[in-house]
Amino acid sequence: MQKLFGILGLATFLSLLPASAMAQASTETGFVLNTFGFLIWGALVMLMCAGFTMLEAGSVRTKNASVICMKNIGLYSIAGLAYYVIGYNIMYVDVDGGFFGSISLFRGNSASEIAFLSAAPEMIDQARETLLAESDGYATMSDWFFQMVFVATTASIISGTLAERVRLWSFFLFVAILTACIYPIVGAWTWGGGWLAEMGFQDFAGSTIVHSTGGWAALSGAMLLGARRGRFRKDGTIRQLPPSNVPIVTLGVFILWLGWFGFNGGSQLALSSATDALALSNIFANTNIAAAAGVVAALVLSKPILGRMDLLATLNGAIAGLVAITAGPDLVDHQWAILIGGVGGAVTVAGTKLLETVRVDDVVGAIPAHLFAGIWGTLAVCIAAGGNLFVQLTGIVAIGIFVFAVSTAVWMLIDRLIGLRVSPSAEQLGQDVVELGIEAYPEFVAIPEPDDDDD
Amino acid sequence: MQKLFGILGLATFLSLLPASAMAQASTETGFVLNTFGFLIWGALVMLMCAGFTMLEAGSVRTKNASVICMKNIGLYSIAGLAYYVIGYNIMYVDVDGGFFGSISLFRGNSASEIAFLSAAPEMIDQARETLLAESDGYATMSDWFFQMVFVATTASIISGTLAERVRLWSFFLFVAILTACIYPIVGAWTWGGGWLAEMGFQDFAGSTIVHSTGGWAALSGAMLLGARRGRFRKDGTIRQLPPSNVPIVTLGVFILWLGWFGFNGGSQLALSSATDALALSNIFANTNIAAAAGVVAALVLSKPILGRMDLLATLNGAIAGLVAITAGPDLVDHQWAILIGGVGGAVTVAGTKLLETVRVDDVVGAIPAHLFAGIWGTLAVCIAAGGNLFVQLTGIVAIGIFVFAVSTAVWMLIDRLIGLRVSPSAEQLGQDVVELGIEAYPEFVAIPEPDDDDD
Amino acid sequence: MQKLFGILGLATFLSLLPASAMAQASTETGFVLNTFGFLIWGALVMLMCAGFTMLEAGSVRTKNASVICMKNIGLYSIAGLAYYVIGYNIMYVDVDGGFFGSISLFRGNSASEIAFLSAAPEMIDQARETLLAESDGYATMSDWFFQMVFVATTASIISGTLAERVRLWSFFLFVAILTACIYPIVGAWTWGGGWLAEMGFQDFAGSTIVHSTGGWAALSGAMLLGARRGRFRKDGTIRQLPPSNVPIVTLGVFILWLGWFGFNGGSQLALSSATDALALSNIFANTNIAAAAGVVAALVLSKPILGRMDLLATLNGAIAGLVAITAGPDLVDHQWAILIGGVGGAVTVAGTKLLETVRVDDVVGAIPAHLFAGIWGTLAVCIAAGGNLFVQLTGIVAIGIFVFAVSTAVWMLIDRLIGLRVSPSAEQLGQDVVELGIEAYPEFVAIPEPDDDDD
Repeated sequence: MQKLFGILGLATFLSLLPASAMAQASTETGFVLNTFGFLIWGALVMLMCAGFTMLEAGSVRTKNASVICMKNIGLYSIAGLAYYVIGYNIMYVDVDGGFFGSISLFRGNSASEIAFLSAAPEMIDQARETLLAESDGYATMSDWFFQMVFVATTASIISGTLAERVRLWSFFLFVAILTACIYPIVGAWTWGGGWLAEMGFQDFAGSTIVHSTGGWAALSGAMLLGARRGRFRKDGTIRQLPPSNVPIVTLGVFILWLGWFGFNGGSQLALSSATDALALSNIFANTNIAAAAGVVAALVLSKPILGRMDLLATLNGAIAGLVAITAGPDLVDHQWAILIGGVGGAVTVAGTKLLETVRVDDVVGAIPAHLFAGIWGTLAVCIAAGGNLFVQLTGIVAIGIFVFAVSTAVWMLIDRLIGLRVSPSAEQLGQDVVELGIEAYPEFVAIPEPDDDDD
Repeated sequence: MQKLFGILGLATFLSLLPASAMAQASTETGFVLNTFGFLIWGALVMLMCAGFTMLEAGSVRTKNASVICMKNIGLYSIAGLAYYVIGYNIMYVDVDGGFFGSISLFRGNSASEIAFLSAAPEMIDQARETLLAESDGYATMSDWFFQMVFVATTASIISGTLAERVRLWSFFLFVAILTACIYPIVGAWTWGGGWLAEMGFQDFAGSTIVHSTGGWAALSGAMLLGARRGRFRKDGTIRQLPPSNVPIVTLGVFILWLGWFGFNGGSQLALSSATDALALSNIFANTNIAAAAGVVAALVLSKPILGRMDLLATLNGAIAGLVAITAGPDLVDHQWAILIGGVGGAVTVAGTKLLETVRVDDVVGAIPAHLFAGIWGTLAVCIAAGGNLFVQLTGIVAIGIFVFAVSTAVWMLIDRLIGLRVSPSAEQLGQDVVELGIEAYPEFVAIPEPDDDDD
Repeated sequence: MQKLFGILGLATFLSLLPASAMAQASTETGFVLNTFGFLIWGALVMLMCAGFTMLEAGSVRTKNASVICMKNIGLYSIAGLAYYVIGYNIMYVDVDGGFFGSISLFRGNSASEIAFLSAAPEMIDQARETLLAESDGYATMSDWFFQMVFVATTASIISGTLAERVRLWSFFLFVAILTACIYPIVGAWTWGGGWLAEMGFQDFAGSTIVHSTGGWAALSGAMLLGARRGRFRKDGTIRQLPPSNVPIVTLGVFILWLGWFGFNGGSQLALSSATDALALSNIFANTNIAAAAGVVAALVLSKPILGRMDLLATLNGAIAGLVAITAGPDLVDHQWAILIGGVGGAVTVAGTKLLETVRVDDVVGAIPAHLFAGIWGTLAVCIAAGGNLFVQLTGIVAIGIFVFAVSTAVWMLIDRLIGLRVSPSAEQLGQDVVELGIEAYPEFVAIPEPDDDDD
C-alpha cells in the first residue's frame, strides 16, 4: 500500500478506490440523486394531468366540462391503482426479451430495501451496503412513481379525443384495462427489456411507447364512437365546435410544456454523473426548442392548411413539437431539434385537416399531436441520430397494430356490456347534467346551441 | 496510521473517517441537499396556495369569487410575515418539552451562518467547518421557508369553509393570530419538541398538526358565523349552492395533489442519505396511492351516501386521501396506503352528509376533508405502523380542544371588535361588489339568483 | 507522503487534495448539482409564462382574451428560438468589458462537452476530466435554458401593457428583435461581463436588467400606441376597464410568485457548496418576505391612493415586491426585505396612479410593477447592502435610455412597415374575432360594452 502511494501519488491512489468506501459514499449520493430525480421529474409529469384537464375542459363545450374534469381526476386515480396493483410487474419483472413480464401483485419495496428499512441499528451499515449493491442506483418506488405518471399520460390522451360522447364509466373501464395491461405490455416490449428492446428500438421517452399508444387507442375509440352530433353535416360541410374557455386551454398547454421537461428529463433515468447532467441539459434545450419550433410552424401553416390562423392549432403545435422530440431528445443536435419540432407542428396541422377529411372527430386534436407527431418523431431519430429505420418502423407498426387491435376489441366489449356512447338526448343536453347533475358554469347564461340534429 | 492501513485495507480505512475532511466534504454535500430539499419541496407547498385559491374561487358563487382571491393572496402574505416575525420562534426555539417556545422576534440566520457569510477569505474554511458542525444539516431559512408554507396551508383551509360570509378584514385578523400564535403553539407541542413530542405523538407531516388545526378553527368559525343565507331552509330541506366554475376547482385539486408531494416529502426533513431517498420514494408512492384510493372511494360512495354521483365529493376524496396518509406516509405499507386513503375518502363523503345533517355550512367541504380525515389518518398510524393509540388520541383531543377553544375565543373577540359576518344585503349582493367593488367575471351575464331569504 | 501523514493527521491529509481525484469526484457532483439547479429553477421560471398568460388573459376584456393567449405562447416560442440562434452569443461570448458579444450562430455544446459525449469508452475518463476542468461548473445548455426563460420574461412584461390594441404580428416582430438583440445587449453589459459589470453594477437577478428592460420597452410601446379607446375620456375622467376573469389573474400571480423562487434562486448560478445553500435559503426567504410585504403595502395603500380597496393593485403589489427584491435577494437582511418589498408595493400603487394621471394606458400595471419597482429595487441594494449609488444610477439610466430609445425606434419602424395598432373597428369588435376568428368564451352571453368612442 505504502509503495503504491509512493509510486502513484495521491490522485492516482484515490482514483483506484472504486470498490472502496469512498466509491460507496459516492454511490450513496448517486442513489439519493437518482431517486430524487425520479421524484421531482415525476412530480412535473404528474402535473401534466392538470394540463390535460385544463386543455380538455377548455376545449369541450360548457355542457361537458364537468364530466371531462371527472374523467381526468378519475383516470389519474384509476391508472395509479391499476399500475400499482398489476401493471408495473407486467412491464418490468422478468420480461427477458419476451412479450410481457410477471402477472402478479406488485409488492413495492425490494427485499434489500425492506431489510434496510427494518435493520437494527448495529446492522444498518451492512444493510446499506447491501442495498446500494443490489439496487439499480435508485429506490424502487421512485421508479414506480415515475413510470406511473407516464401511464396516466397515455390515458389522458384518450379522454381528450373522445370527449363529449363517451360514457363516464365506460371510459373508466377502458382506462383500467389500458393501464393495467395494454400499456404495460407495450412497455414490456421496450423499456421492460422485451423483444423490441432486443432489436434495438429507440424511443427515449416514448414518442411511440407513450404517445402513439395513447393515440392509437384514441383513434380506435373515435372510429367506433363516431363523431359528435352536428360535427360533420350531411351536406359534407364541417362544423367547428369551438372551445368554451380558451385561456384554460392555453394554461393547459403551458403546464404540459413544463411537465415535458420532467417527462423527457426523467427518462435519462439518472441524475448522478456528468453524463447525466450533460444529457439532461441537452434534453431540456431540445425539448424547448422543438416545442417552440412546433408553435412557429403551426402558427405559420394553420392559415394555408386550415384556412384560418388558428390558436388551437398553434397550441397543438407545441404539443406536437414536444411529442416529436420525445423519441430522441438526448441524442439529436439542437439544430435538428428545430427541424424535428417544426415538422412535428406541420404534421399536426396537416393531420388535423386529414382527420376532418376522413370525418374522424377528435375534440382536442390529440391524434394528430400524439399519434402522427409521435410516428414522425420515432422515425426522425434515424435521420438525426442514426437509428435503424427498419427497427424503428417495426416498433411503430407492431405497437400500432397491437394497441389498435386490442383497444378496438376492448371498446367493442365495453360497448356490449354497458354501452359506449351516451344517448342522443344526453349528448344534446350535455353529459354534465345527465351523468353528473352538475354544470361547469351554472351561473353564466349560455348562448343556446344551434340545432345539431342534421347528421 | 500506517499500521492501520496494513491491517484493515483501504475500504475500512476510509470508512473510519467520519470526523475527517472526507466526512466534511460529504457533510457539505448533505448540507446542500438537505437545504435544497426544503426549498424545492417548500416551493411545491407554496403552490398549494394557488390550489386552494382555485378550489375556493371555483366553489363559491361568482358574486364572491374576487373576495376569496383577495383572502387567499392576503392570507399567504400575512402568514408569511407573522410567522417570520414571531411564529417561528414560538414553535421552535427553546420549547424543551413545554407548551411553547420563545416569544421574541425571529432574526433569521444563525450565528454560525452570519459568521460564515461575513467571513474574510482567509477565515472561510474555518467558518465553513463551524457552520457545518453547528447546523442541523441545513440552512436555517430553508427550514423557515418550509415551515412557513405549512402555516399558510392551515390558514387556507379556513378561508374555504367560511367563504361567502366572513368579512375580509375579520378573516385577515384571525389569520394573523392563527399564524403568529395558535398554529405555532400546536407546532411547539409536537414538531418543536414540546410535551406531545415527548409523549411520542406521531404525525409525520401534520394530519392533525396542520390539517385538523385548520379544520377545528374552520369548524369553530362556521358554527359562530352560521350558514350562508338560503343554504338550510326553514322546512328542513337543504339547498345545494353549486360551484360557479368547476374546471378551476379541478385545477385546484390537482395543484394541491402536486403540492402534497412537497408537503409529505419535505417532512422527511432531509435529502442526503439512502434512508432519506428510500423514505421519500415510499412517501411519494403512498401519498399518490392514498389520494387515488380516496378518489375512487368517494366516486363510488357519493351516490349511495349523498344521493348523487358527485364530482366535488370525488375531488374532495383526493384531498381526504392526502390528508389521511399525511400522518404516516413514510411508515406504512403501500397496501395500507390504499386502505388509509380509501377510508379517508369514505369518511369525507360521510362527513359531508353529517355536516349537512347538523346544518353546519362548509363551502368547500374542508372540515370533512381536513379535520375528519385528519383524525382518521392520525389514528390509522397506530393500525398500520404500530403507534400508541392512547398517545395519538391524546394528541388529537388536546390539539382539538386547544384550537377549537382558542379559535372560538378569537372569533368572538373579532366579532365584538369589528364584526364577523357581512350584512344580509352584502351577502345578497355579494362580497365582491360590496367589499371590493370588483366583480370576478363582470362581462358575463349571470342567471339571477333565486330569492334565498327564507332561512 | 508518509511523513505528511504522520505530522498532519488524516483530516488535514484529505483537505490537501483539491487537485486530486477526490476533489474531482466532488467536482463531478458539483457539476451535476449546478447543472440540475439551472434546469429545475429554469423550469419554474418557464412556468412564469403561464403565470403571465393567466394574469393577462384575465385582465383583458373577453373580446381580446384569445389573442393575448396567442401572443404569450408565441412570444415564448419566438424568444426561445431567437435567443438560441443569436441572442445567447451576443450576451455571453467575448463581451470582454464591451458593449456586446459575438454576432454568430450559437452552436450549443462546448467543445469539451462534444468531445465527452462522443468519447470512445476507453477515453471517457480523460474526456470527463477535460470536461470538468474546462467547464464553468455546469453544462452549457443548462445555462442557456436558464437564460432563455429570462428573455421570455422580459417579453411577457410587454405583452401585458400593450394588450387589447397592438397587432399580433407587429408584437411578434418586436419580440423577435427584443430577444435576439435588445435584451442580449443589456445582458452583455452586465451578466455577460460588459462595461457595467466592470463598473460594479449590482443587479443579482435582474430588477433592472430583466424587469426594467421589459418595462421600458413596454412604456415606449404604450406611449406610441396610445390608450385603449374609451380609457381616458375627453372630459378628463378615467374609465376603469375591469378584468374579465379575476380568478385566473390571481392564479397568474401565484404562479409568478412560485416562478420567482426559480428566478432569484437560480441566479445564484450554483448549487454545490454551503455558500450556495445558504445564499439560496436567504434568497427564498427574502423573495417571499418582500412579496408578502408588497401585498400588504398595496392592500393598505390602494384605498387612500386609488380611492378603492383594489384586488388588482394588491396582486400587483406581490409582483412589485418580487421585482424590488430581485436586485439583491442574496445580500439583504430579512428585515430589509420587508422594507424593500413594502416600498415596492407602495411605489407600484403610486405609479399606477401616476400613469393614470399622465394618461398612459397599461392594461396590467406592468410598468409600475416591473419598471418603477425595478428602479427602486436596484437603488435599494445600496441602502441595504452597501452598493455604489452612482454605479447603480449609471446602470439604471444607461439601460433605460438604451432600451427606451431602441425600442421606440423599433416600434416606429414596425409601425411604418406593417402598422402597430389594430383598426378602430377591430378594437371595438375585439382582436379575437378580427385577428383570430375565435372567441375566448364563445358560449357565454356577454354584457354589451358601453359605447367607448368618445376619446
